[in-house]
Amino acid sequence: MTRTQSTSRITGEVDALVRAVRPPAAARPELVQHHLDVLTKPRGSLGFLEALAIRLALIYGDPPAAWKRRVVFVLAGDHGVAARGVSSYPPEVTAQMCRNYSAGGAAISVVARTVRATVVAADLGVNATIADVPNLVHAKVRHGTRDLSTEAAMTRDETATAILRGASLVEAGGGVPDIIGMGEMGIGNTTSASALTAALTGTNPARLVGRGTGIGAEALRIKRKVVREAVARISQRTDPLGILAELGGFEIAGLVGVLLAGARHGRAVVTDGVIATAAALVAVRLCPPVRQYLFASHCSTEPAHRILLDALELRPLFMLDMRLGEGTGAALAFPILEASAALLREMATFEEAGVSQHTRRGRT
Amino acid sequence: MTRTQSTSRITGEVDALVRAVRPPAAARPELVQHHLDVLTKPRGSLGFLEALAIRLALIYGDPPAAWKRRVVFVLAGDHGVAARGVSSYPPEVTAQMCRNYSAGGAAISVVARTVRATVVAADLGVNATIADVPNLVHAKVRHGTRDLSTEAAMTRDETATAILRGASLVEAGGGVPDIIGMGEMGIGNTTSASALTAALTGTNPARLVGRGTGIGAEALRIKRKVVREAVARISQRTDPLGILAELGGFEIAGLVGVLLAGARHGRAVVTDGVIATAAALVAVRLCPPVRQYLFASHCSTEPAHRILLDALELRPLFMLDMRLGEGTGAALAFPILEASAALLREMATFEEAGVSQHTRRGRT
Repeated sequence: MTRTQSTSRITGEVDALVRAVRPPAAARPELVQHHLDVLTKPRGSLGFLEALAIRLALIYGDPPAAWKRRVVFVLAGDHGVAARGVSSYPPEVTAQMCRNYSAGGAAISVVARTVRATVVAADLGVNATIADVPNLVHAKVRHGTRDLSTEAAMTRDETATAILRGASLVEAGGGVPDIIGMGEMGIGNTTSASALTAALTGTNPARLVGRGTGIGAEALRIKRKVVREAVARISQRTDPLGILAELGGFEIAGLVGVLLAGARHGRAVVTDGVIATAAALVAVRLCPPVRQYLFASHCSTEPAHRILLDALELRPLFMLDMRLGEGTGAALAFPILEASAALLREMATFEEAGVSQHTRRGRT
Repeated sequence: MTRTQSTSRITGEVDALVRAVRPPAAARPELVQHHLDVLTKPRGSLGFLEALAIRLALIYGDPPAAWKRRVVFVLAGDHGVAARGVSSYPPEVTAQMCRNYSAGGAAISVVARTVRATVVAADLGVNATIADVPNLVHAKVRHGTRDLSTEAAMTRDETATAILRGASLVEAGGGVPDIIGMGEMGIGNTTSASALTAALTGTNPARLVGRGTGIGAEALRIKRKVVREAVARISQRTDPLGILAELGGFEIAGLVGVLLAGARHGRAVVTDGVIATAAALVAVRLCPPVRQYLFASHCSTEPAHRILLDALELRPLFMLDMRLGEGTGAALAFPILEASAALLREMATFEEAGVSQHTRRGRT
């Protein structure tokens, strides 16, 4: 009885968060388009940057104010399924990498510094006691998930708790960031993301399981089998929270919360690799307006990533064969998004600059 | 006689610049590869960023020192062929845009600020008297080129002069920049770049002429005809400087000089759209070692751009349907290159961070 009440209260808080998200309406798209068309450049010549500018103006207003605080949230969690041998790294690497984020020596630490972003790393479900690690948010829900190939990875309660802890990260510290990147770390989590992708999109697991961090043929065979078993096990499930509980991970659920909270506070949220993008699809299924706050960064070499981006109808900004996660792709997208917003804020119009507009030879 | 001597002296200076370029050798590729492989990430998981890191280490050493001064050179020039009706904008826009760069209101002004780069705009051959414009380097060789469809756009002397003036931009002001972007502005210059691409690569003009700033069907027909005529007119020419003189522009020749000087001083130089990339191919044909200092940024919608990148064997970092020029793509590539270099400088190794390496399940 207590358990049921507790479940209700926590999942009820997730429901409240979902209901609090409003579609962005800080500008009217046709007015932003007109603004873009009177700036000193041939009409449409900035291509996809102009489409990004319109989306950002809807979120932040036209012109969007300059961003001061850029944050990449790197959420970590372990996966029971790792014991099946689906990764080329031992599970203890998840905890070790938390120390690396803390010390600023990881790839995301470096990339974030390059783009003037801050990394907020958090333990959502690492299977080790790392409460001593500084510069790490301690938000552990459990010491790793259960093996998703044989049972639910998380209870609904645990899942909702992880979502809420992810959401609270966005609101903690120095206030809600102006722009948010989604990052993750967790040995075994491409297996989880692949299973989520299969279950959420109805794609045959054989089509979407990839090599993750670089596994060999035998591990790939096991990974395919595990994903097939997991998806078959829950084939009756259709609710996004239930699917997330069955196949997800604490860091993935935490990222669902980061995205929901970012959208709820009217911020653009940038997804990353296949794992973050699986979290993004869960969030959009839970709360469709979230899609309008979500931006793709890259498309990785993991086959499931393209399937997820297609399901989200998001165009990636670059494809550089990255497959690291940690938010490295999201961070590299920040300057492209920032430049798109700055065009509206800082570019001169034809009239202001005294530049002649196109002649009738133009097609527009 | 005087004319011949003068030609010899100036083209001789270009020859000297070409001979001064040395292949980069500040690091050994196999040692940089080893360094990348002991950093705390799955081997190869940063994809193309790792290939960029190796190229940058060859140029700057391993680890590359942090870049302080990032500069995009935006060179402007007018084209006699514009009178044929190949653009949707009137030729006076070239001069007007120079004032816009000077005032900081152009797209490149905005994008450069986003990535902490400086714009150095220069008049190499604008067909207007704009000596009064501040914040503009006055390096005019001539008031626009001749009509390349009927005669040589520039003399060899003028061409060599523009190359040398472009080169001197790199060495002027605050010292040689740490990283260099190639940008340009010139009404009619996609026609020039298309003709250069056809002549340098032997591609049928019908395959590579595009809509430039957005011309209609009639202007496109004229543009195709003009390029066909120009290429046919010089079909016997094979020397890069001669082809550049016949079909190029002052801003394009200036960019050849920027790239040669950047390479000569051991700096990475980032190309931009179809016009800058045509200049890059001329420079590489004049001086093959230059290729090793050259980095692609984006691939635009102009058909000739892909052909040029293929000829240069350069992989673009992103494809965002940009077709503005001005160095906007080059500037957006800076953070990606900077992050690639920073990985070598700032990432922890497995040993330093106490992170376990992959197990035998890995394929490497």
